[in-house]
Amino acid sequence: MNRLYHVPLSPFCRKVRLTLAEKKIEVELVEERYWEPTPEFLRRNPAGKVPILRMDSRVLTESQAICEYLEETVPNPPLMPKDPGARHEVRRLCSWFDDKFQNEVTSKLVYERVNKKVMAQGYPDSKNVKFGAARIKYHLDYMAWLLDQRRWLAGDVMTLADFTAAAHLSCLDYISDVDWHRQPAVKDWYAKIKSRPSFRTLLVDQISGFPPPAHYADLDF
Amino acid sequence: MNRLYHVPLSPFCRKVRLTLAEKKIEVELVEERYWEPTPEFLRRNPAGKVPILRMDSRVLTESQAICEYLEETVPNPPLMPKDPGARHEVRRLCSWFDDKFQNEVTSKLVYERVNKKVMAQGYPDSKNVKFGAARIKYHLDYMAWLLDQRRWLAGDVMTLADFTAAAHLSCLDYISDVDWHRQPAVKDWYAKIKSRPSFRTLLVDQISGFPPPAHYADLDF
Repeated sequence: MNRLYHVPLSPFCRKVRLTLAEKKIEVELVEERYWEPTPEFLRRNPAGKVPILRMDSRVLTESQAICEYLEETVPNPPLMPKDPGARHEVRRLCSWFDDKFQNEVTSKLVYERVNKKVMAQGYPDSKNVKFGAARIKYHLDYMAWLLDQRRWLAGDVMTLADFTAAAHLSCLDYISDVDWHRQPAVKDWYAKIKSRPSFRTLLVDQISGFPPPAHYADLDF
Repeated sequence: MNRLYHVPLSPFCRKVRLTLAEKKIEVELVEERYWEPTPEFLRRNPAGKVPILRMDSRVLTESQAICEYLEETVPNPPLMPKDPGARHEVRRLCSWFDDKFQNEVTSKLVYERVNKKVMAQGYPDSKNVKFGAARIKYHLDYMAWLLDQRRWLAGDVMTLADFTAAAHLSCLDYISDVDWHRQPAVKDWYAKIKSRPSFRTLLVDQISGFPPPAHYADLDF
């Protein structure tokens, strides 16, 4: 059986979960307290991070590298276009969300509000929370600008870029940090992704001590 | 003419420069003061980062996405193997260096010692410098452990993983922050990469106010 070591509110783990579910690859989910690493865990991934996917008698790590592997070995349904220029745009946006959005928004809000408490690493730093809350506006506007020209974030077909972005936004939505009124085009885009069967696994996540708001699992939010 | 907007001591720009040179793609280098962004620069890359490659009437950004594009459009010589598992290992190690090594080492040493002064952002934070100097030892040991089992970092052929790692180490070597005596296997590996024609462009880099040490350009270091 394939096995994914993960934590529920990690955008990187969620991106892999969505990719697995889109490609109908069954997987057993195992929560991993990576901030209290065991020697066995570090053997699986010396980088000390999740997600870790055990599949095809391989141990796969790094979310983007895992998704590229899944795309190459289970090509249907495709989450990347065929044209190299279009593929570049998908990968550029994956980096946009996994690097820039992660540093400016996800880490500033999810890490400060949730992870710090779960990991017993102190209280939220209000300077970081303020920064993240201000910065998400810019990113929602950028997404709306893209969606004004395209059906999906990277072009006219749904790709890994959409699942990467949705993975981040879904974590922020769990803690009510997305203002869905700001950009109707972004809300419409998210509603389309959120109603996919692959998204169901994320909508039933429960983090102990942090119950999700009612709208989180509601498809008509 | 292809054009690369870059800064000389950025591992991400150097990774793209090495990939371009390996594939014998000619390019005009243009230094970009990305920390003083002009509207024109932000139009090319709203993420506000270098490298930016103008090629095939496209504007390409994000170093890993650029290198994947170059691999797909100019496949010879290949910098990625064909087997999906082997490709995953290349991409895993690219992430290792561009994310983990960057956060723990490159940013702690190069940013503190050089970028801060160039950007007029203050003095090196000695806590960061100490952290980076301690942490690089762990990474050199990890590389030696890989090279004990393989000819190159990701397997028995030279790949983008090697150029990614060499891009980071070459920046650190420019400021004499690599102890080449620690792991002879890593030194041997770096000597092989350093002697490639593609590396020459990096060895003549000069950062104003920071002359490189004599060993930096010496192939017999």
